[in-house]
Amino acid sequence: MKKTVVDINCDLGESFGVYNLGQDEELLGLISSANVACGFHAGDPHVMRKTVLLAKTSGVRLGAHPGLPDLIGFGRRAMQVSPSELKDMFTYQIGALKAFVEAAGMKLQHVIQHGILTKMAEEDATLGRAILESIQEVDREILYLTLEGSYLPQMAREMGIKIVRTAFADRAYDRKKRLVSRKTPGSVIHDLRQVEKRIEQLVNEGMITTIEGETLPLEFDSIMLHGDSPGALEIAKTVSGTLMRLGVQIKPMSQLV
Amino acid sequence: MKKTVVDINCDLGESFGVYNLGQDEELLGLISSANVACGFHAGDPHVMRKTVLLAKTSGVRLGAHPGLPDLIGFGRRAMQVSPSELKDMFTYQIGALKAFVEAAGMKLQHVIQHGILTKMAEEDATLGRAILESIQEVDREILYLTLEGSYLPQMAREMGIKIVRTAFADRAYDRKKRLVSRKTPGSVIHDLRQVEKRIEQLVNEGMITTIEGETLPLEFDSIMLHGDSPGALEIAKTVSGTLMRLGVQIKPMSQLV
Amino acid sequence: MKKTVVDINCDLGESFGVYNLGQDEELLGLISSANVACGFHAGDPHVMRKTVLLAKTSGVRLGAHPGLPDLIGFGRRAMQVSPSELKDMFTYQIGALKAFVEAAGMKLQHVIQHGILTKMAEEDATLGRAILESIQEVDREILYLTLEGSYLPQMAREMGIKIVRTAFADRAYDRKKRLVSRKTPGSVIHDLRQVEKRIEQLVNEGMITTIEGETLPLEFDSIMLHGDSPGALEIAKTVSGTLMRLGVQIKPMSQLV
Amino acid sequence: MKKTVVDINCDLGESFGVYNLGQDEELLGLISSANVACGFHAGDPHVMRKTVLLAKTSGVRLGAHPGLPDLIGFGRRAMQVSPSELKDMFTYQIGALKAFVEAAGMKLQHVIQHGILTKMAEEDATLGRAILESIQEVDREILYLTLEGSYLPQMAREMGIKIVRTAFADRAYDRKKRLVSRKTPGSVIHDLRQVEKRIEQLVNEGMITTIEGETLPLEFDSIMLHGDSPGALEIAKTVSGTLMRLGVQIKPMSQLV
Repeated sequence: MKKTVVDINCDLGESFGVYNLGQDEELLGLISSANVACGFHAGDPHVMRKTVLLAKTSGVRLGAHPGLPDLIGFGRRAMQVSPSELKDMFTYQIGALKAFVEAAGMKLQHVIQHGILTKMAEEDATLGRAILESIQEVDREILYLTLEGSYLPQMAREMGIKIVRTAFADRAYDRKKRLVSRKTPGSVIHDLRQVEKRIEQLVNEGMITTIEGETLPLEFDSIMLHGDSPGALEIAKTVSGTLMRLGVQIKPMSQLV
Repeated sequence: MKKTVVDINCDLGESFGVYNLGQDEELLGLISSANVACGFHAGDPHVMRKTVLLAKTSGVRLGAHPGLPDLIGFGRRAMQVSPSELKDMFTYQIGALKAFVEAAGMKLQHVIQHGILTKMAEEDATLGRAILESIQEVDREILYLTLEGSYLPQMAREMGIKIVRTAFADRAYDRKKRLVSRKTPGSVIHDLRQVEKRIEQLVNEGMITTIEGETLPLEFDSIMLHGDSPGALEIAKTVSGTLMRLGVQIKPMSQLV
Repeated sequence: MKKTVVDINCDLGESFGVYNLGQDEELLGLISSANVACGFHAGDPHVMRKTVLLAKTSGVRLGAHPGLPDLIGFGRRAMQVSPSELKDMFTYQIGALKAFVEAAGMKLQHVIQHGILTKMAEEDATLGRAILESIQEVDREILYLTLEGSYLPQMAREMGIKIVRTAFADRAYDRKKRLVSRKTPGSVIHDLRQVEKRIEQLVNEGMITTIEGETLPLEFDSIMLHGDSPGALEIAKTVSGTLMRLGVQIKPMSQLV
Repeated sequence: MKKTVVDINCDLGESFGVYNLGQDEELLGLISSANVACGFHAGDPHVMRKTVLLAKTSGVRLGAHPGLPDLIGFGRRAMQVSPSELKDMFTYQIGALKAFVEAAGMKLQHVIQHGILTKMAEEDATLGRAILESIQEVDREILYLTLEGSYLPQMAREMGIKIVRTAFADRAYDRKKRLVSRKTPGSVIHDLRQVEKRIEQLVNEGMITTIEGETLPLEFDSIMLHGDSPGALEIAKTVSGTLMRLGVQIKPMSQLV
């Protein structure tokens, strides 16, 4: 059955001090939910405030995007953290962003872990549980934005956390519905026509064709865009434009689940 | 008129990673409100969690103690920050601590700025206003713990923020009811018998004798202890013991105002 | 008397982790000396290595550009540091960069403080002396790159430190030969024809016309370029091109003094 | 053959800002070589200066003790760093300490990696090589302080780096001459009489009895003490006292190899 409403999410607020990163202002016009860096791997208090206010003006809802405490590595280098350390880092970061969101008269919509933490959590359920426990202790209404292909969506549901499933239009999937590593040729899709086709396939059929050539069902509520790669804006416009052409409404994930 | 109820507050949670500072566990048995470092000048997410849980167990209420982003200098070195930078730093830090407090099933009681920020705010009303605006935007119910002798209590009241006035039993006051600089001889009172007398004077008469020898009225709701100086614990015990001997109840500031 | 040899210096190596700043590769072709950030206000170990190796390839000599420990503020926010704190920060940063420079088979050529530290040092001679003492204790052969208009060149000479005087082609001077604050209209010169004229005046006559309209002698060995402002590259090309057109050789400052 | 000269080394300079760690002043009287933290996992520029000067006064020679950039985790949490990242981190930290050592009129004696880096380097030869390349590029005369039981001493020798082998009197060894994990019962020796016996066995026979009960030859030039554990000072005094009682001279490692 054809999707009629979809969320578009993107990482935002990754600038730091004088350092600009990403194309937040352009992307805000195309998305409905933003994953905002919280000062550990990127972002700072001033950038967080600015991002929240820009998002509000654009009608974009806000999520926390906590990362490892590694600004030099941008949260992409694995660190050996214990579950309780990770839980404490998350509660700190989510709490900090929540304060800016609420100060702007909004409500924190969702949380998604940043960078290498997704891999770390998928491989170690004690870390995944720590992330979910943090979300739950901060606010039971916060949504967990997650991918298919791991135990995480199921664990979240069992803990009573509402999940939102995100899909990618510009990344290849394998037959386990996991993202193909960026190191594999063909894992990142740059061709706009292909991106368009994948959006059509996802929206009209709820299916994805894997890198092996199989066509599998893929449940999703939200399409994730990337902001910091070359050509990112073109892909973002293609995703957004295709959805509109197909008559799909773009709405924040909290209105979908 | 004699005071019958007083709060005792103290800075806690100033450890960082493997670095221990202060005597939090001993002090928690003597105080009713804790000012908890928020990770900029001291403290880290794990220390914050631990401090919140220890305080809860001891029946101690929690306040945020935001500081400048200068761990090496422990927030004691002035920095040229703009009002909006300061406001954003506060909202970030207060929000982070608030998340831990609420995760523990409590409510953030108060905020007090740390270290050199008191002097900076007293000398620059745009910084003082930034602090108060941050408190207000995070939660209108949060109390502002403050000292006599500057415009800050009045500005807070005018903005609709409830204030709690703190007094010191081990620091000398001048005739403007300001704390005498630590560099001045006699500014810090180490003699336990003198501390006891000052508590008696404060509680029974609501008066303080200044370093110049004048006796002036001093309104207060809370006595501030210090945790990290030599002899701090003895002074803390003297303050607490004297209050109990005088039949004064020790209660969190939120129950007094 | 016409100058026949001049150095061109520029701040480089200000990127950090994934954050790119400046146009280092383009500028390296135009300059003879680079002021390299040392990890406190900008730069990181990897960026430092890369900058040193790129400079070597381009025949550009290297200087340390130590700053305050404030990455968010890019070393532009004044901090209340003691002379001994500042000296220690400098020795640390200069030592770190020197290791990369020597590992590349080169010799550290010079030091110049970054950002707000110039103003702080000009206003407080104990801080200026701390900077010079650090340079001297690290290596007596290191040059101190400095501006006219303060006590610093004279103090350096008296301490036995060789100085190199830098001039600006795109910044207005006042009649005390100090740079006019960026907040003053006309302080930053964007017009390429004007930049060209100032270079001609400096090189041919050793003179500068101040913002008040006076023409004063200005001694200099090196022209400082800026890398991170819009239009910076055009100005850099104008400075370099004008010098070449005038038959002036562009050589590292160590070959001039 | 009985040892007549031995070095004693210990980690020092692990304080940070207002945070004190270790018992540096007491230990300096017992040791001949110090491993000084370089600001990434512990230490700051001011602590480094102070430690260098105290060591000089005590006739103790100085080594760099670089760690991972993780102050909260004290360099004990593994991080996924590339060889080139690690090499750059080391050159930065070694260079910074070297500047303080040379400013004090001394020469940097040795390098030893801190914390989890030993395990990381032992398990990944590309990381071990990165450490050794950094030492070599900073100064070919610097000694590498290392343990038996891995490829590292051999690789260092092949690269032309002089090595110094350290042994432990208060840690159990396994039959591969590797330290037994601290998690294993019996891995840390607290009994002073046992420490004394192990020193006697090492010095008189050049042998160590492993946790399995075998007695194996163990080459060493230096005994490593620990400064930050409870009872550390008693063990340090026992090691030093036993060596003196046995007529062994305690000298910096650079005088032994």
